Amino acid sequence: MTTLLHIEASAQRAERSLTRLLGREFFATWQHLRPHDRVLRRDLAVDPVEPIDAEWIAAAFTPPDARTPAMVDRLRGSDAIVDAVSAADVIVMGVPMYNYGIPGALKCWIDQSARIGRTFSFDLARGDVPIEPILSGKTLVVLSACGEFGFEPGGMRAAMNALDPQLAACAHYWGVTRERIHTVRIEYQEFKDARFAASVEAGKAAAVALAERLARAASASMSRAA
Amino acid sequence: MTTLLHIEASAQRAERSLTRLLGREFFATWQHLRPHDRVLRRDLAVDPVEPIDAEWIAAAFTPPDARTPAMVDRLRGSDAIVDAVSAADVIVMGVPMYNYGIPGALKCWIDQSARIGRTFSFDLARGDVPIEPILSGKTLVVLSACGEFGFEPGGMRAAMNALDPQLAACAHYWGVTRERIHTVRIEYQEFKDARFAASVEAGKAAAVALAERLARAASASMSRAA
Repeated sequence: MTTLLHIEASAQRAERSLTRLLGREFFATWQHLRPHDRVLRRDLAVDPVEPIDAEWIAAAFTPPDARTPAMVDRLRGSDAIVDAVSAADVIVMGVPMYNYGIPGALKCWIDQSARIGRTFSFDLARGDVPIEPILSGKTLVVLSACGEFGFEPGGMRAAMNALDPQLAACAHYWGVTRERIHTVRIEYQEFKDARFAASVEAGKAAAVALAERLARAASASMSRAA
Repeated sequence: MTTLLHIEASAQRAERSLTRLLGREFFATWQHLRPHDRVLRRDLAVDPVEPIDAEWIAAAFTPPDARTPAMVDRLRGSDAIVDAVSAADVIVMGVPMYNYGIPGALKCWIDQSARIGRTFSFDLARGDVPIEPILSGKTLVVLSACGEFGFEPGGMRAAMNALDPQLAACAHYWGVTRERIHTVRIEYQEFKDARFAASVEAGKAAAVALAERLARAASASMSRAA
């Protein structure tokens, strides 16, 4: 069995959200091919994550056996996030571009997903690269949408793209290497023109194709293991 | 009189926060030189901003004279943010790097600072660049701190830097052009070594020097206007 974790960061309801639309396409395809897989879900519009605060930081950087009951309590939400990431083989994130980056709601989730001793280790004996990931072998699917266009490398707005660098820089916390990040992006939403309509159709097709490819890879991997 | 807006995004209390330390250096210098200027403050650790939601988006994109009382109410927090930005000549942001980007708390503030009709206009008659800023002539001071190092262009972690692209991409909302973004950054915090100690001292000196330069420019501009 494969476990999928679906994090949805759109502030919009289903009928207005392109990332939710891509999520429906991806999961309908996956569940058709592999109906018995487990899907964990976190909709940040319904169940948001608080920004970290001084108490959270103090608790996270206190060794587990030295934490007070209040510290343990303060980390419960973060523990749930890390438990879900740890359990997942495939992490699917619905990430609309808001103001050139990820939604604030998703950055709050990310900030609680980075946990010393659980998602990364830190050792100054490693010299200038003291951080290493703890989790590994996972795949990240980014289902994105933006109002404008040209955010790809070489595109006219490449330098304004703070979304992809943020996710790529943090993927190691979730056990994801860069070559296992797959991104589907709808563009041109603000223009509401033929380019937008084409981008929606291409995005839906790409989400379906990606789900098929990853679901088949999961099945092949199971066959080899059996 | 010059108006300064100080947004502090550190989750840490004063004694643990490097960005708060830089802020104290900057404002002590400024206020010594120009004691009668006005300083507006927003500490996101004390007075956080909510993530935007579907109601917020609907309210923001409804023309002001068509908004329901509930919509008007939903935008009050955003109005206060935009009022403060509009009033400011110099915006000083304390921005620690959390997980390679800006804190979630600051992205929530940013997402409420972007307002059609107040901080940007949108017109498809402008073709592929429909967004234009409404505010202008302001200066942004970024007082930052990071655990690692090498996030500058050409540095070993340049590709992981999601902080500077996020602020640069959004600066137009705050009436700031790229050449008027000034960044002071303390590095090496995680290493707690001589490089860190040197970076703290260099950062403090840079914050003081920047405050002196900008305060003198404000005084010169006043003299010319008089």
